[in-house]
This record gives sequence, structure tokens and C-alpha cells, in this order.
Amino acid sequence: MQPKAITHHGKPLGGARFPAICAPLVGRTREALLAEAAAVAEKQPDLIEWRVDFYEGIGDAKGVAELAGRIKHVCQGLPILFTCRWSREGGEKISLSQAEVTRLHRAVCESGHVDFIDFEMGNEPDHVRQVREASRANATQLILSFHDFQRTPAIEELNRRFAQAEQLGADVAKVAVMPGEMQDVLVLLAATLQSSQKLRIPLVSMSMAGAGAVTRLCGGAFGSALSFAIGQSASAPGQMPIEDLATALAIVRKALGPSR
Amino acid sequence: MQPKAITHHGKPLGGARFPAICAPLVGRTREALLAEAAAVAEKQPDLIEWRVDFYEGIGDAKGVAELAGRIKHVCQGLPILFTCRWSREGGEKISLSQAEVTRLHRAVCESGHVDFIDFEMGNEPDHVRQVREASRANATQLILSFHDFQRTPAIEELNRRFAQAEQLGADVAKVAVMPGEMQDVLVLLAATLQSSQKLRIPLVSMSMAGAGAVTRLCGGAFGSALSFAIGQSASAPGQMPIEDLATALAIVRKALGPSR
Repeated sequence: MQPKAITHHGKPLGGARFPAICAPLVGRTREALLAEAAAVAEKQPDLIEWRVDFYEGIGDAKGVAELAGRIKHVCQGLPILFTCRWSREGGEKISLSQAEVTRLHRAVCESGHVDFIDFEMGNEPDHVRQVREASRANATQLILSFHDFQRTPAIEELNRRFAQAEQLGADVAKVAVMPGEMQDVLVLLAATLQSSQKLRIPLVSMSMAGAGAVTRLCGGAFGSALSFAIGQSASAPGQMPIEDLATALAIVRKALGPSR
Repeated sequence: MQPKAITHHGKPLGGARFPAICAPLVGRTREALLAEAAAVAEKQPDLIEWRVDFYEGIGDAKGVAELAGRIKHVCQGLPILFTCRWSREGGEKISLSQAEVTRLHRAVCESGHVDFIDFEMGNEPDHVRQVREASRANATQLILSFHDFQRTPAIEELNRRFAQAEQLGADVAKVAVMPGEMQDVLVLLAATLQSSQKLRIPLVSMSMAGAGAVTRLCGGAFGSALSFAIGQSASAPGQMPIEDLATALAIVRKALGPSR
């Protein structure tokens, strides 16, 4: 069974390539971000993620929405994913309250400058609802995500997280976990395979750090629709340079056969 | 835990690279084989496998032993693995009896021209013993192998096969199976991981065909010491060109981190 691709304007992200490749932007200043966006866009990822938790101006929602538009412009038509990761899920320390983060997402959706937003499913249900409504009203796709930087939960828990994203109305479900040993990498791949055969929405998964790197290369064969790679700087442990990932994915796709 | 490497003259096959790469020779005539050996050796695999079941002169044990020496010479010091695969385990149809195949292995061991022989653990126990003795007496390492071209047995059965090779005195255990679905690929990787942590000898495993191709790339991270790639022609379904495998393995090793 061909796993479900993430779509953008009705077309699969990255065309016939599965999984698609996403590269993050982690600049701290407006100037650094725009330079990074231009350099990363040159490398032709299928999606560019702005990790706004790295940005020093995160407290100004209006300014963030405007800057999203500048980034979109610099990236010349590449779809943009907007992500504010809490430090408890692997992001930078930010001084915003949950309500402020939710308002930030609403402002960015309403700006129309981004194509996807990532919101953690562990946020308060009322905030998930607000963001779901704002994204739907502005044709922005919602990725609901779960991260565990300490360990890899059991397969049942991973499957439950994928299903929870769908139940909460996500367009895409994402799970990223840390392996303690190689067996954990197989648990993540098994959950990805099982959930990708059950969910109606596409999903994204990865096992992090060096031990999990094989999931960034081979996760697509088990149902993960997107793999994150370094454009200029990593945003999570285990990401490899986009050139390496693209080269290895092309070899994997060729080996898997014509259907991939 | 670093998986066990296959050694040759006390050094890990392929130096610091894990897994090592093996390319098969499948020529039908002496002339074709020597040309193939020269071309494949140019591509610098870590090991060259002569699949003698493809060779039209297989019935002449003395001629085979002599030709092994010519191949060894043409390959300029690369270690040689000698394999006669039964058709029931994925090989060509040959007209030899089990006793004749066993005699062939003894003759090749006694010639001193090959470094490894592959013998199927499903052969009659007395023949396995004879080949074990001949290989030990001539400092030829013995790979005891199990193949299933129809399906992927349950994990307990796969672990039993790895353990059986060690119990029968193998220097290396090998298991190659066919996946029906992607879950089978995870079963093969899980068995590889479990057995590599239990066995005292190195092991080799692969899930075949397109679906199993990820094991040729990532099996090393789960304990498989050797990956087979196409030098000039494939000897089993799912093998990829040696250039592709070497490129992808270098990316995987870099991503896994300095210990690999």
C-alpha cells in the first residue's frame, strides 16, 4: 500500500518523491532568518519550516506574521510550515504564555503567509480547538505533533498519539521520539507502519539522534510522508544535511521499485 | 553495542566500514567469469562471492578449484567467498548430488584459493560436518546460511536459524528471507538485532526484493555485518548497484555517528 502523501494545493508535496523533504530555519534575527531562508530555498527542499521559537522577535505577533510573508517571498513559492516548539518538546526557551502562543498561531494563519502550522497535541484542548478553527478558516493545514526527547514510548502509546492527532482534526499527524536502543527504532517504525494503514490522514514520524537516523532515510517505506534535514542548521538531533538525505532517498526509492 | 564484524586475516572486512560490501559473480563460462571478476574487482567491494551454481563447469571439482585460483588472482587480493546455492534456496538448477556438492566444497577448501565458503545449514548434518572439517583444516571460514524465498518466518524461527549456525560451528551465520509485507522487514531486523546481541559469531541478514531493500542499507545498524550489491549482475532480488549501496552506506554511517 502506498502511504498517504502530504498535499499542497491538491498536489503531493515533493511531486512523485516520497517522503518529501523539509528543512528548518532557526535564525534568531530578522536579518539572519531572511539570509537563511534564501540559502535554504536554494537547496530545493519540498517544505521550509520556520522554527519561530528561535526568533528573538517572537513576542510581537504582528511582526511575526509580517516576517512570515517576507520569508514566503524569499522562498519563492516553496510552501512554509510555521512551528513554535515548547522547550518541554525540544524547542527553545520562550517567554510566551500558552494563550500568547495560541494568539500567535491565529495571527499567522490569518496573515495567509504560511501553508502549514505545527501545533503540539499536548496543548490545552481549548487552544487546540482555537488553532484548528483559525487554520481551517484560512486554508492553512494543521500538523498536530507529539515529541518525547527522553525516550520511546510503547507502540500502543505511539499509535494512540497518531490517532489522537486525527481525532483532534489534524490534517497531518506527527510523532518524534528519542531511542534509548536500536529496538526503540523498530518500535517507532512498527507504529508508523500500523498507524499509516489505519489513519485517513498522512503521518510523519522519526526516531531522533544518531541511532534513529535510519528512520529519516527509511521511514518513508513504513509510511512516514516527510523527513527533516539540515538546510543550514539542525533543529533536532539526528538530522543530516539535505544533500545527503536527498541522495540517499533517491537510492532508497530506486531500490524499493517503481511504485515509490 | 558495536555489532561483530566479519574478519579476514584478523582484520575486520572492509576496514572501519560496517557493514562490509559483497558483490557476486554469476558468469556461466570460464571466460565470462574471469572478465566479470576483473570488472567487479575494479569496483572495490570488500568481498567477492563466486556463485558457482551459475557456472557450466560445476561438475568438474578439480577444474572448479583451479578456476577459483584464477578468480582469486584476477581479484588481486580481495577475499573470495565460494557459494553453491541449491535451487530450493534461490540458486540455479544444478545436476549434482548432495555428496558431489560436498566433495566440491572440500576440493575448493583444500585448494586454498578461497577465503570463505557458504554452505546451507539445511544440508544433511553429516555433510555439514564434512564441510566444517575441511574448511577448518584449510583455514577457510564457514558461513552457514538459511534462505526462504517464499516468506519471512516468525522471529523465533529466524533467531533459531542464527543460533543453529553457531551451534553447527559456523564462523558466520547468514539468514535471507522474502518479505510479504513491510511488517516482515521489521521482523527480520528485530531478529537480526536480538541474535547479534546473543551470538558470539558475526551474522549477516537481509530481507529480499524491493520491499526488503531498506535492510541492505540499514541492516548494519541492527547487527548485519555484510550487505550484498550488484557488481555486474544481481544474484538475488533486491540487490542494488554497488555504487548506490556504497554511497548510501557512507551517508548512513555518517548519520549514525562516529562509532560506526
